[in-house]
Amino acid sequence: MLRERLAFFGALCAILVSINLATADPNECELPPGLREEIAQYQPVVDSIFQHIVSGEYAGKTWQSLLEFTDRFGPRLTGSKQLEDAIDFAVQEMIAEGLDNVHTEEAIVSHWQRGREWAELVEPFQKNLPMLGLGKSVGTAPEGIRAEVIVVESFEEFENFTADQVEGKIVVFVPAWAGYGATVQYRSESASVAANKGAAAVLVRSMAPFSIGTPHTGTLSYDPEVRRIPAAAITVEDAMLLLRKYRRGDKMIIHLKMDAMNLDPTISRNTIGELEGHTFKNTSVVVVSGHMDSWDVGTGAMDDAGGVFISWKAVTFLKAMGLRPRRTIRAIYWTAEETGLEGADEYEKQHSEDEKDEFNVFFESDSGTFKPTGLDFSGNSDAHCIFAEIAKLMPGFNDFTYTEGTVGSDIGNWERRGFPGVSLRNKNENYFWYHHSEGDTMELEDPHDLDRSTALWAATAYVIADLSIDIPKDVTDYKPK
Amino acid sequence: MLRERLAFFGALCAILVSINLATADPNECELPPGLREEIAQYQPVVDSIFQHIVSGEYAGKTWQSLLEFTDRFGPRLTGSKQLEDAIDFAVQEMIAEGLDNVHTEEAIVSHWQRGREWAELVEPFQKNLPMLGLGKSVGTAPEGIRAEVIVVESFEEFENFTADQVEGKIVVFVPAWAGYGATVQYRSESASVAANKGAAAVLVRSMAPFSIGTPHTGTLSYDPEVRRIPAAAITVEDAMLLLRKYRRGDKMIIHLKMDAMNLDPTISRNTIGELEGHTFKNTSVVVVSGHMDSWDVGTGAMDDAGGVFISWKAVTFLKAMGLRPRRTIRAIYWTAEETGLEGADEYEKQHSEDEKDEFNVFFESDSGTFKPTGLDFSGNSDAHCIFAEIAKLMPGFNDFTYTEGTVGSDIGNWERRGFPGVSLRNKNENYFWYHHSEGDTMELEDPHDLDRSTALWAATAYVIADLSIDIPKDVTDYKPK
Repeated sequence: MLRERLAFFGALCAILVSINLATADPNECELPPGLREEIAQYQPVVDSIFQHIVSGEYAGKTWQSLLEFTDRFGPRLTGSKQLEDAIDFAVQEMIAEGLDNVHTEEAIVSHWQRGREWAELVEPFQKNLPMLGLGKSVGTAPEGIRAEVIVVESFEEFENFTADQVEGKIVVFVPAWAGYGATVQYRSESASVAANKGAAAVLVRSMAPFSIGTPHTGTLSYDPEVRRIPAAAITVEDAMLLLRKYRRGDKMIIHLKMDAMNLDPTISRNTIGELEGHTFKNTSVVVVSGHMDSWDVGTGAMDDAGGVFISWKAVTFLKAMGLRPRRTIRAIYWTAEETGLEGADEYEKQHSEDEKDEFNVFFESDSGTFKPTGLDFSGNSDAHCIFAEIAKLMPGFNDFTYTEGTVGSDIGNWERRGFPGVSLRNKNENYFWYHHSEGDTMELEDPHDLDRSTALWAATAYVIADLSIDIPKDVTDYKPK
Repeated sequence: MLRERLAFFGALCAILVSINLATADPNECELPPGLREEIAQYQPVVDSIFQHIVSGEYAGKTWQSLLEFTDRFGPRLTGSKQLEDAIDFAVQEMIAEGLDNVHTEEAIVSHWQRGREWAELVEPFQKNLPMLGLGKSVGTAPEGIRAEVIVVESFEEFENFTADQVEGKIVVFVPAWAGYGATVQYRSESASVAANKGAAAVLVRSMAPFSIGTPHTGTLSYDPEVRRIPAAAITVEDAMLLLRKYRRGDKMIIHLKMDAMNLDPTISRNTIGELEGHTFKNTSVVVVSGHMDSWDVGTGAMDDAGGVFISWKAVTFLKAMGLRPRRTIRAIYWTAEETGLEGADEYEKQHSEDEKDEFNVFFESDSGTFKPTGLDFSGNSDAHCIFAEIAKLMPGFNDFTYTEGTVGSDIGNWERRGFPGVSLRNKNENYFWYHHSEGDTMELEDPHDLDRSTALWAATAYVIADLSIDIPKDVTDYKPK
């Protein structure tokens, strides 16, 4: 039960990795009368949006804004002044750009601090173990934990150990990389699984398929019934070394020191700016979004300032072009995604009274803004048909997928309840080389790729927001907890 | 003058990056009468060596031995017990394998210890700066150095700063990557260049063309006339961030803490095992080599346990095959390469009386044992002609280069004085992704590539050691200092 809940949570925390293609075949779609012709009429405005953003006056501006933002505020950990400063800046800038209804909405969020930390193999030889404490982990005592090591590849293997064997040990979990969705349970759950048998601390192989000695952080989730023990990620290389040594029978001792602390929850804010619709203002809203917070390593340029900026600049550039659709396009920069979708959850709670009417479609980009190739769409088969028709307008793109599942992190709650969703397909094959690591920086972002991403985002959102009909949805009567 | 000396030293410390092709054209070679036919007669034995090592009973064994060695001893910093334990192990193993004249020869070497260390940007925002203190750097006071920052791209740019401006600051050097040979001067010299104007400490962009938030260490060289200040490498990403911020006028403060210490010089050992020649024992020796020490990050599998093991196993497998050439093949595993060729220098000093007669050709592999493609040869034009003829025997290889310069690190002294040299060409385009970092581990080594490297090494050394004539050389009368 714990494992299921945590795995679900873990899967939410970042990109959706595997997508079940829906059965609806766009070639067999029957659209409402006249809709195909109506959509085709948007071709000139779509072309104009692309021209302005990709080769016209806005070319390079998404990248430039993203650079200035990440250079100015650095990493934006939930609970940090840096995140709140970045939010204040976004508000001021969006007001200066003339966006509509610029404001923030508060959310109570976790406040975890990393502090100083290190890990070291001290026997049978000395080696520093580069590491990153996992988000929400407790720290060690000031002198650290110095303990013998058990190394396993899986939870199944760990089941073979008795509490007597585990008591007081540092347990190292070294799961083979099987994709993020399938492997991240080890980051989420290992601490409680090991603590349940009396472990003193846990180390986990970083969630990455390739490494240059790089640790990758991310949040864990403690079982409330189990003692909380410190947990950190080590590099792929060190994890493999420890696993081989343990299997050879080498007795190993690790010294782990973490000053991590969970402080009292604090207040952060979702950040909102709009291009208000000329007909519908606060109903049938098209949300374009990314998350403002990041981990405290790198500068979170990829995860997820890139998603924030293509959403932000899509609205900014549409506004500057004098385009105002029928419905409102609302840019939302979620807070506290990394600590467990705390910003999105609070937003949903605050908007749940009227959300069936308030929202039309949710966009989120949270799986990289590398070279864009198309979009992922989720929703019912009627929605698929309309998305497929809109997709034909997008110049130079041919990679569109349709799913009945979810395609976003923060927008997952809405998608699961029947709202249509859209996310950015992009050449993110190496996304997990950098994810939650010191490698998540502006080095990964390319001006032209960002221009094309912003243009695709802007044009798709504009057409959806301006159509004569809403995108179909089958929203259940769920209320958030 | 200082800069020239340090640059020269820096270039020695690792692989030779650019090679000047010699003018000798192997197609126009005139070989001594009968030599071409003599060399051709080695084809069956060369084929047999390859067969045994690549697909026969020794297949996979170089990799297996390398794995067990690096897993057992970990990183092997000069001055460490781990290095000396590894040397003891190599001696025992070579004796067990029945190699000839197994022994060590002492060298007095540097003894630097890293200790605990960290760096942090504290203003205008907080960010941990992953770093590695540079080898031989002094540490900071216990409370660290907290100082304002100057960031420059080059020594030329730094010349514009006055001592008043630099006094008490942390200077960050962010040279553009122009290849290792051209860039490494910034690692070697920055500390003294900055200290000369009163800097408190130095940070240098890691010597790497690509990074996932990975710092790369390496040795520095203090000008004896200048105050020694702490120096460390930071990641490429953070260096670029600091440079951009500085150029925008952001005032930055960094807190740097390093417990690094230079202890009294200590004794280490070059490790030697031979396949003794049936005719010449201690003259016209063919040396095959790599260096045993590594940095204290990763496990030094690439730099340079791979070079050690292809040299070691070449001799082991020739011996096991019952092949005994005319001349001795001597495997040497140099100590203290990373701290400045200290082991090779001492070996040269001890062997300088008779070295003109003692040595024939020096092999060293110290630029990776990725997929092998051929060999680099250095020497005079007569040597080139013979090497080119031998190269034709090597099955499946076609990438051979000839130079009048040097092709090795530890063997550079000999090559510069006219001894022929040989090193391994291999697909090491990404060598500097991993070099001197936590990414230098067994993940980079492939069993089949190692087999082919060992076979190429063994077959080439065997033919050279068994030829009726020595490889020509023009040795000067230099005596080492």
